[in-house]
Amino acid sequence: MKVVGTIKEVRQQVKEWRKAGESVALVPTMGYLHEGHGSLITRAKNENDRVVVSIFVNPMQFGPGEDLESYPRDLEKDSAFCENLGADLIFHPTPEEMYPEGFCSYVDMSVLTEELCGQSRPVHFRGVCTVCSKLFHIVTPDRAYFGQKDAQQLAIIKRLVLDMSMDLQIVGCPIIREKDGLAKSSRNTYLSEEERKAALVLSKAVSLGEQLTKAGENDAKVVLDKMIKLIEAEPMAKIDYVKAVDGLTMQQTDKITDGTLFAMAVYIGKTRLIDNFSVSR
Amino acid sequence: MKVVGTIKEVRQQVKEWRKAGESVALVPTMGYLHEGHGSLITRAKNENDRVVVSIFVNPMQFGPGEDLESYPRDLEKDSAFCENLGADLIFHPTPEEMYPEGFCSYVDMSVLTEELCGQSRPVHFRGVCTVCSKLFHIVTPDRAYFGQKDAQQLAIIKRLVLDMSMDLQIVGCPIIREKDGLAKSSRNTYLSEEERKAALVLSKAVSLGEQLTKAGENDAKVVLDKMIKLIEAEPMAKIDYVKAVDGLTMQQTDKITDGTLFAMAVYIGKTRLIDNFSVSR
Repeated sequence: MKVVGTIKEVRQQVKEWRKAGESVALVPTMGYLHEGHGSLITRAKNENDRVVVSIFVNPMQFGPGEDLESYPRDLEKDSAFCENLGADLIFHPTPEEMYPEGFCSYVDMSVLTEELCGQSRPVHFRGVCTVCSKLFHIVTPDRAYFGQKDAQQLAIIKRLVLDMSMDLQIVGCPIIREKDGLAKSSRNTYLSEEERKAALVLSKAVSLGEQLTKAGENDAKVVLDKMIKLIEAEPMAKIDYVKAVDGLTMQQTDKITDGTLFAMAVYIGKTRLIDNFSVSR
Repeated sequence: MKVVGTIKEVRQQVKEWRKAGESVALVPTMGYLHEGHGSLITRAKNENDRVVVSIFVNPMQFGPGEDLESYPRDLEKDSAFCENLGADLIFHPTPEEMYPEGFCSYVDMSVLTEELCGQSRPVHFRGVCTVCSKLFHIVTPDRAYFGQKDAQQLAIIKRLVLDMSMDLQIVGCPIIREKDGLAKSSRNTYLSEEERKAALVLSKAVSLGEQLTKAGENDAKVVLDKMIKLIEAEPMAKIDYVKAVDGLTMQQTDKITDGTLFAMAVYIGKTRLIDNFSVSR
């Protein structure tokens, strides 16, 4: 497995693979990899000849006052992790490589970006759309793999690829959880021991919501109220949002149907965590 | 030569060409082709095995009150024109093919889009960046050809390709003029006989500016003042802007150096015409 830092090196490698008729997958990450990322890399390896993992803490998707500086990084550990799972290439660019002097372009979206995390993180999805478009141009993958934990991001990237006529397939992969239910996230490392326990309210609320919708509840408000009540019972938790939206458009919905997404962002202390589930009927 | 309307047909054709190892060029146009477009197609044919001409009057780059509806169209004539010049494929999509139901993505840029035409046409370059990105994704050309008549558009597309790490070369081609100097434009058909004569002030101002800069003038204001005076002497002309900018960043400049762009937009009656020249030293 190679680790490269320049766009040119990635292109060269991918062109060699293409000449040999090999298919190429991309797993875009911000590093500090955990089993959630691992599941993406493993699936990508199963479905493609070659797997590129990009590791880039993208400044453009962090707002002022967010955790760009403190976001955890460990390239050495990440490299071993990727190699173990059979990845073929890590692309680990500097911010200067991705955003050269005078950079002033961006890719963005209305509608889907305006709800949920888009409300609390106004520049976030512009950064995500821009960096993913760039990565797609650089790697030209057949398939790119994203986790359903970032459900809104996944919906946005799928819409982006459709809207912009990009010739690749976006594959969404299930949320990977700790044994006690907490959704795996690089940001979990921010949690103190006490906060780590309190953070369980997110997955507990997800479980409760799933139970209620599986039992046939059709009114989103009924489910949301119970989820919110559960979260509010935890003194360390502060809700950013808990909402039910259409799984494609991210627009709020009152009626639960196939594809309805229940999504939440909750602060545990200073750490903002997200979790969600989709209704399938 | 084939004329196709769907993205799928373009992709299929391009994939066949790629399999045969052929290089592919794109000439993006809004149709109603003239010798300006012709020079792009001819150059593209000289430098590539295959040439795709896209003909699409892109609604997204027209503002409210602009000439989207009245913009001239003649696919039959355009097809014959392209075939004559050796083009291999015309891509002529409907707006619905390019902007499917729920379309909400866009590509845009700051800095370069904020000057010149960007001030009088605030949504224009977002439309241009979005449609060109889409066309690049659909055709995946090795090279795309743009006229220097739309100098700001050319600079923006070059910056976009650089910023977004798109793997293609943007080729700028010289302005083609009528015998009397008027820059070729599909919009020239809007002009009455009288307006057609008055429209010569644009190319006359360009000639004057070129003379002064070639003679060694270094102060942009001196050149602009004389150009403006010349245009203002024509009663049918109403200046939108006449400016000197850095040829890469489109930011206004007082000092004339290699690459300085003198650009203008002038209304002749209701028709808005543009022209420009670049200083090379």
